[in-house]
Amino acid sequence: MIDSIKALTFDVFGTVVDWRSSLIEEGERLTKRLGYKVSWEEFADKWRAGYGPAMQRVRQGDIAWTNIDNLHRTILDELIIEFGLTSMTEKEVSNLNKVWHRLKPWNDAVEGLTRLKKRFTVATLSNGNISLLENMARFANLPWDQIFSAEIFGHYKPDAETYLGAVALLELEPAEVMMVAAHPSDLEAAAENGLRTGYVSRPLEWGSEATPDQISEHDFDIVSSDFHDLATKLGA
Amino acid sequence: MIDSIKALTFDVFGTVVDWRSSLIEEGERLTKRLGYKVSWEEFADKWRAGYGPAMQRVRQGDIAWTNIDNLHRTILDELIIEFGLTSMTEKEVSNLNKVWHRLKPWNDAVEGLTRLKKRFTVATLSNGNISLLENMARFANLPWDQIFSAEIFGHYKPDAETYLGAVALLELEPAEVMMVAAHPSDLEAAAENGLRTGYVSRPLEWGSEATPDQISEHDFDIVSSDFHDLATKLGA
Repeated sequence: MIDSIKALTFDVFGTVVDWRSSLIEEGERLTKRLGYKVSWEEFADKWRAGYGPAMQRVRQGDIAWTNIDNLHRTILDELIIEFGLTSMTEKEVSNLNKVWHRLKPWNDAVEGLTRLKKRFTVATLSNGNISLLENMARFANLPWDQIFSAEIFGHYKPDAETYLGAVALLELEPAEVMMVAAHPSDLEAAAENGLRTGYVSRPLEWGSEATPDQISEHDFDIVSSDFHDLATKLGA
Repeated sequence: MIDSIKALTFDVFGTVVDWRSSLIEEGERLTKRLGYKVSWEEFADKWRAGYGPAMQRVRQGDIAWTNIDNLHRTILDELIIEFGLTSMTEKEVSNLNKVWHRLKPWNDAVEGLTRLKKRFTVATLSNGNISLLENMARFANLPWDQIFSAEIFGHYKPDAETYLGAVALLELEPAEVMMVAAHPSDLEAAAENGLRTGYVSRPLEWGSEATPDQISEHDFDIVSSDFHDLATKLGA
């Protein structure tokens, strides 16, 4: 199986970068500067929790195509009222919304990707928009060969158009591409479309008190503990 | 002007890579292996010359969207007859067609791009298809932040959709993006759409006997002799 794989496509939020800690740190800087007393953990979790339903509205056709920056902004505008941050200027709000462009990678991500890139094409396959992913790659030194985004396909994951769109642009067969993600639902959708699946455990994605997914070794083609382990199991 | 530029989009064939020498070398390897007596200079020039008219047929709607690999193959199939190469196997022809994925960069290209990347987002904006550009980047160590291709936009340069499509995905204004190319027509179309223009001289693109374009310093925002000169003039 491994010998036939030519490219790896990566989920990004949660799989490559630690969005939660990054958001909390950004919030703590706001607290220092502007004096807000806010549970930034709760703020981060609510912001992220609004993301799935927002994409779902696009996927169902309830609203026209809207990229993630704009979906994030809609959710943020509500949180600003809920958390009493209304004294922020438009410039500050806009900058806070772009925290998603400045997320920190998990400790193993850059080195692991660099190892994997020697053997495989490494690409994003993320719901994040192109400019977000590109700014993040520059900020975090992520060595992508290619940035694929839902924005190119006009469909959000887990729509088939995203997985099959990336496979087509790579001019590969689905079985030559492995989707890598920390989220079973993403991998299950990839598998339904014929892609290989590589699970990476990110038990701290939702903080140290969250209950990690229960994954068996047989659920996916590869089950790994981080990008180093993934590289080793893929012979890279 | 320079202070407002945030991203550079590059033409690739001829501007970043030396397609002609690469094709001639590949042909000479075929001569050694299969004994063909062919003027590979003429072969290369004819293959490249077929490219514009083939794209034109797509641009005019005479044929449906066809990517460059397939346009190259159509032209190659005719050249194989014209140059008496019909003893090649399908595998050999297919491999020859992919020579466009293995083009060598001009001597200054990798270092120059690496310098430019420190200050600017560096992206392709090429008529080459995604897999071609991605294979080439891995082959030639081209450090792109982003690979934009006509294939994403469903339009070939010089259609406005390509220049404005890249600007939109970068979430920039046209005047914040500089198109870099060795071809005046590409830069003129970019300028018509509000982009900045950076000319790079590649006098050997069509061989040492071709007549280089006559360019005045005032024709484009920047006129440079190679990527080092471009980087210096852009303060990178």
